[in-house]
Amino acid sequence: MGDGEGHPYVPSDMKLPGFVPQLIPTSTILGVYLGVSTLVVLVTWIGSGFIRKLSKSERTLMCWWIFTGLTHMVLEGYFVFTPDFYKKTSPIYLAEVWKEYSKGDSRYAARNSAVVSIEGVTAVLEGPFCLLCLYAIAAKKSYRHVLQLAISLGQLYGTIVYFVTSYLDGDNFATNSIYYYGYYVLANSFWIVIPSAILIHCWRKICAAVGDQDQKKTKSL
Amino acid sequence: MGDGEGHPYVPSDMKLPGFVPQLIPTSTILGVYLGVSTLVVLVTWIGSGFIRKLSKSERTLMCWWIFTGLTHMVLEGYFVFTPDFYKKTSPIYLAEVWKEYSKGDSRYAARNSAVVSIEGVTAVLEGPFCLLCLYAIAAKKSYRHVLQLAISLGQLYGTIVYFVTSYLDGDNFATNSIYYYGYYVLANSFWIVIPSAILIHCWRKICAAVGDQDQKKTKSL
Repeated sequence: MGDGEGHPYVPSDMKLPGFVPQLIPTSTILGVYLGVSTLVVLVTWIGSGFIRKLSKSERTLMCWWIFTGLTHMVLEGYFVFTPDFYKKTSPIYLAEVWKEYSKGDSRYAARNSAVVSIEGVTAVLEGPFCLLCLYAIAAKKSYRHVLQLAISLGQLYGTIVYFVTSYLDGDNFATNSIYYYGYYVLANSFWIVIPSAILIHCWRKICAAVGDQDQKKTKSL
Repeated sequence: MGDGEGHPYVPSDMKLPGFVPQLIPTSTILGVYLGVSTLVVLVTWIGSGFIRKLSKSERTLMCWWIFTGLTHMVLEGYFVFTPDFYKKTSPIYLAEVWKEYSKGDSRYAARNSAVVSIEGVTAVLEGPFCLLCLYAIAAKKSYRHVLQLAISLGQLYGTIVYFVTSYLDGDNFATNSIYYYGYYVLANSFWIVIPSAILIHCWRKICAAVGDQDQKKTKSL
């Protein structure tokens, strides 16, 4: 079943033996991701309101870290450790996500080594550290700024290499321009814009603290 | 001249039309790199000794940043912007460096997109920021720790993706095991060990400063 059937990905002569056509409709795939993400963010926002002394910007950051951390660990983690996701014959949600996303970037189905490497680092290293950010912010740990900056830099680096490798390989991996702009460009752009903003925010916080300490040392001399 | 001649790289059926065999001997290539690097490091060490209040560890860091910054900008920069380095018919040192290094990793001659992307980020973004570190350390700028941490993280990320993509693609790009261990493993391992050490050093400095500031704020409340 499904064997020998054509896939919707580009290039159309890409070999995907055992490919099983998508079993869950696009609307359900996107709806579940948006719905679950919204729920998780809402719970985090409300829950963080009970922790004293957290500013609204700290609570917003916590919402981002749980959203991006779970995306890295659950969605991207599944991709990294499931090379045969496109062969699944039963409607497994996480497999269907990657069948759907591959329409925007077929390198996922083709298991391009640059994509798998970046996703590996993101899922295995960055994911768990994103969740640590929630604790670091809530408990006002002294490493909270540098941890957020480090993960944001990793996300930025990964997204840049992701785009540049695609460009160098011809930038022709999308089924059509809707998937290209919707998935490849728009979805990924969040991981350029938000990490950049957090990078600037944490950079400033760190410089202010280091500058303060430098001044104190100069005075005490 | 040189057209149609066999190259020494793996796999031997890799297409490199117009390949010109190496014109400068290995010993000269390595000798010039080590000699120039040693000279640059020595000049930086001695020069930094004239700047008051710089500790020996700060001066050591400056030596590292000038060495790695120039390596990124000059050597790796040449590679990024010279796709046809293996066709050079005159003995251009920088082209010969990459003919030599390709014996340890033929993806350089083959212009593998992951390698070019990583080298692009390293040469164009990280290189100039490495040189900024020299100024930041010498002038005790408040961003000196976070800048060094950011570049070190970038170097680590790049080196990890560099190794993982090779592993996923079969890890068979070296002419023989001497080049494999000497160039691919040993040379690159410096960019794992040293950035890791700097990462830990700067992380601690930043946490100490942020922790101090947090305490001050708690007291003043």
